[in-house]
Amino acid sequence: MTALPGIEIQNRFRSHFAGHLTEEQEAQTVRLAGWIHRKRDHGGLIFIDLRDHTGICQLIVNPEDAELFAEAEKLHTESVIAVEGRVVPRSPETVNPRLASGRIEVVLSSIRVESQAVPLPFPVADEIQTSEELRLTYRFLDLRREKIHQNIIFRSQLTSKVRRYLEERGFTEIQTPILTASSPEGARDFLVPSRLNPGKFYALPQAPQQFKQLLMVSGFPRYFQIAPCFRDEDARADRSPGEFYQVDMEMAFIEQNDLFEILEGMFKHLVETMSSKRITAFPFPRISYREVMDRYGSDKPDLRIPLEIEDVSDLFRDSSFKVFASNAKDGCAVKAMVLKGRGGESRQFYDKAERRAKELGSPGLAYIQFREEGPKGPIVKFLKEEELAALQDRLGLETGDVVFFGAGKWVATCKIMGGMREYFSDLFELDRDELSFCWIIDFPMFEYDEKLKKIEFSHNPFSMPQGEMEALDTKDPLDILAYQYDIVCNGIELSSGAIRNHRPDIMYKAFEIAGYPKEEVDKRFGHMIEAFKMGAPPHGGIAPGLDRLVMILRDEQNIREVIAFPMNQSAQDLMMHAPSEVAPEQLRELSLKLDIREE
Amino acid sequence: MTALPGIEIQNRFRSHFAGHLTEEQEAQTVRLAGWIHRKRDHGGLIFIDLRDHTGICQLIVNPEDAELFAEAEKLHTESVIAVEGRVVPRSPETVNPRLASGRIEVVLSSIRVESQAVPLPFPVADEIQTSEELRLTYRFLDLRREKIHQNIIFRSQLTSKVRRYLEERGFTEIQTPILTASSPEGARDFLVPSRLNPGKFYALPQAPQQFKQLLMVSGFPRYFQIAPCFRDEDARADRSPGEFYQVDMEMAFIEQNDLFEILEGMFKHLVETMSSKRITAFPFPRISYREVMDRYGSDKPDLRIPLEIEDVSDLFRDSSFKVFASNAKDGCAVKAMVLKGRGGESRQFYDKAERRAKELGSPGLAYIQFREEGPKGPIVKFLKEEELAALQDRLGLETGDVVFFGAGKWVATCKIMGGMREYFSDLFELDRDELSFCWIIDFPMFEYDEKLKKIEFSHNPFSMPQGEMEALDTKDPLDILAYQYDIVCNGIELSSGAIRNHRPDIMYKAFEIAGYPKEEVDKRFGHMIEAFKMGAPPHGGIAPGLDRLVMILRDEQNIREVIAFPMNQSAQDLMMHAPSEVAPEQLRELSLKLDIREE
Repeated sequence: MTALPGIEIQNRFRSHFAGHLTEEQEAQTVRLAGWIHRKRDHGGLIFIDLRDHTGICQLIVNPEDAELFAEAEKLHTESVIAVEGRVVPRSPETVNPRLASGRIEVVLSSIRVESQAVPLPFPVADEIQTSEELRLTYRFLDLRREKIHQNIIFRSQLTSKVRRYLEERGFTEIQTPILTASSPEGARDFLVPSRLNPGKFYALPQAPQQFKQLLMVSGFPRYFQIAPCFRDEDARADRSPGEFYQVDMEMAFIEQNDLFEILEGMFKHLVETMSSKRITAFPFPRISYREVMDRYGSDKPDLRIPLEIEDVSDLFRDSSFKVFASNAKDGCAVKAMVLKGRGGESRQFYDKAERRAKELGSPGLAYIQFREEGPKGPIVKFLKEEELAALQDRLGLETGDVVFFGAGKWVATCKIMGGMREYFSDLFELDRDELSFCWIIDFPMFEYDEKLKKIEFSHNPFSMPQGEMEALDTKDPLDILAYQYDIVCNGIELSSGAIRNHRPDIMYKAFEIAGYPKEEVDKRFGHMIEAFKMGAPPHGGIAPGLDRLVMILRDEQNIREVIAFPMNQSAQDLMMHAPSEVAPEQLRELSLKLDIREE
Repeated sequence: MTALPGIEIQNRFRSHFAGHLTEEQEAQTVRLAGWIHRKRDHGGLIFIDLRDHTGICQLIVNPEDAELFAEAEKLHTESVIAVEGRVVPRSPETVNPRLASGRIEVVLSSIRVESQAVPLPFPVADEIQTSEELRLTYRFLDLRREKIHQNIIFRSQLTSKVRRYLEERGFTEIQTPILTASSPEGARDFLVPSRLNPGKFYALPQAPQQFKQLLMVSGFPRYFQIAPCFRDEDARADRSPGEFYQVDMEMAFIEQNDLFEILEGMFKHLVETMSSKRITAFPFPRISYREVMDRYGSDKPDLRIPLEIEDVSDLFRDSSFKVFASNAKDGCAVKAMVLKGRGGESRQFYDKAERRAKELGSPGLAYIQFREEGPKGPIVKFLKEEELAALQDRLGLETGDVVFFGAGKWVATCKIMGGMREYFSDLFELDRDELSFCWIIDFPMFEYDEKLKKIEFSHNPFSMPQGEMEALDTKDPLDILAYQYDIVCNGIELSSGAIRNHRPDIMYKAFEIAGYPKEEVDKRFGHMIEAFKMGAPPHGGIAPGLDRLVMILRDEQNIREVIAFPMNQSAQDLMMHAPSEVAPEQLRELSLKLDIREE
């Protein structure tokens, strides 16, 4: 387990930690305190593995001391004891090289039982599979188990390192309110009834977005907060119901690149000092939204997958194969993805792939196998010899390869091919110790909403459009990019961020383009716009999720493995029995009544 | 203002910070960005005080550059600009020694207006008195003002120092749930309706008390958290409605003194590195509850007040003055407090003091003035010469002094005399730069409840009784002390704390003494007791209030001066308009109905 810096207390419970004892203490009388990890009777002796936060040390009780021996016999696993004894070397054949204290043992002269444990719902020492329900109900026991215990320590150390890194770069951590107003983040708010203001409710923050922007308006140059955020959403493996933490950041008078450098430096520092993982490329590649969709078919690509999507529209512009020719024009695309050496798979392999493509929304999956006997596959007969040759040349296709195709509207085709890229990732062994970070940049500011038949914001209406007012005034809205970015690692989006729009005139104009009149903007976002009218600096930020970062660095798939006291999937704390019923007086004080409907 | 460590970004907005420019940059072209603090026209030139987080720098616009001059003329105070210009030395008579940048000024060659400010509800540069309502409504402006801006920075720095200090001593910061269950802390909970569990509610934590104890049961040796806490109480000057932060701590396998040393070291470190204040005595005096009541009449004494209460019961045991004699016995006390040199005050002085004593619950206020012509006062005639002589001798009374008396039940008399001690503190000039910390220890475990006519817990039922089970089994309950302590500074209680009772058997016994049967204990505290039955270490902790600590070190009387975005006294956030009404659909989703009664 972990070393404990700075703890040097000598008191009646301990003179040393169990994991720190070595031959250096030989012949000394020491005091230790902790939990009985294991106990066994062996050759007339009682052996106790005593566990504290630093590790394990073997204790021995001799039968000569009858009273002590009787005491030790009564002890149950996981009881807490404080002992005194003499450090002796182990005989060579009993040395345990897996323990730091494995070359010594402690012959006890006294045992004080601080807490005799009753039989436990599950063992701590042997990490046997235990139902999540039982683990959460007895979380205080579960947290004694080495893996999760270390996850929680790791999370604390990582949080501390994040803070130091940012503080050393002029960031100030400022706590923003937890009882606040509903904000337009999109998810469902948790509400808190106000006793002093009957009929009114606070909302728990989905993110301190507005507060951090207001702090920029207040002249704090660099803000951060390990911020608790709350969304009343249903649980997922990578999302905890209720609350989660993000490394919330905002900086004034910066451009996109300034922020990238700080964040890249932080991730590098964390990865290098806290894990044995490798970052694929540093600085992190910056990939435009257009390019990432074109090449990977996803705006959160796992760059470790050794497959790329190619655009082959130009090869088929005049093809007699109408499916390709009709999609080789603006707004559409013909896309290809090569699987090297997979041209000789069984029919089942391609059929299964086609089923996946259909699930992804494709009408089918065209492919060509390049075999000894020549190209083969459902569409070969539609293609001219020179088209096949051009394809082979462009994609470097060799005998034994297979190429898959998608054709249709650009974004839909990219996404289907991206889905197939992920589907085929199972064919490769991805390196879990590789972290392939990248920035996705240049997101479009607007998009055409096919359903509403109008222009809408693509992502965040509060991002600054590239080119600012001039762009809004002069460009086709669908060509305008935003200073909006995502940071992605191994296919996981760690955070979105943006350089914000701090200019009310540009904000009104952007909303006007998306069809929102000034009055509606004022009604919904008036207090922010009012603040921006009183002297707002250019600013931007980001907010990587802390839980997710810990999961990535600790190779955990389930967010509940990196949180000390998580709720279960039904948003219940099984240990504390939350949520629970409340007294009628409490509801009366809050001017509320239950209104439960049977469904 | 504050230096910014580590910020070295050079971008299109800035090459330097306003507060960092000195003669070293003379003749250089620099870029600055910030707010227009002040602007004035003087001798045909425009002078702009540009403010950023680091300080102020004077900018000059020459009339020769007509376009630039016209631009500058249009600028309003608190607008945000990014400028370029040349650093020139000021002429000797215009040097401003109050500014770090006061020996230079910047002659501008360009101005880019990032944000033109509309007229403001109150000025930033001149810290004129502004209503709290206006300040809270426009908190983003208020936070630009130097004093509060610095308070927020100070709070952040102090928090960071607390963290580092504790981390270096083996403490792990662990985040505990904010959506949790109601806990028996005594105050009113904020409730959060659960959508997924209709009719049930989470409570926001009043303190993470149970979680931190469970973390000890989980084998984390030292926990801390800068913990958000929530109490639905009415506001006070030193209490924010809604949420506040505490430095929540807990340690396993410690005794009271181990914790004292860590906390004393932390306070010393904070005071020495972050203020120019002095700590009166280090280590902090430890005063038993009995002694602090005897000598200061309060369990949160301001030790700076140069007055002490003396017990003179023994002098009057056989007095013929029945008021004293009848109170010179067990359970009662005759108390005296000397005011040196105040024996010759006007009648009004003593009458006013008596009024105060009556407010404090005393039937009157006996006193004796020691004058040239002999002792004088309402009770002199009842006292024998030798009683007066013994009194003079015991209390070192000299001509010109006055002594005040209280007599009655011990605790009531102590408290009245303590109240008088505080009342008289106005006669002394207390040093604001002196921090007189002390520990109050040895609180009684039980007390006799006069109303209920039964023994009750004095403070916290979960503190360990001194002497543990043996004391409970053998001693008079009213003689049993608890491992319970307070830390007090200048009359302000910073925190209570305790070595906890980790033994279910001792807990049941303590509750039995206070008249609670096992079943009731199990019902109310069952899940904690169950945890303690599975191997609990001895542990203890404390939780000093962060807001209060900042207030003390920054000499602030109002808690809203040390919180970035506080609510007003009615628990409203005037800037964000919280709390607010919610949509009927939201209530329906939460299975709630409003139930507002007219009163």
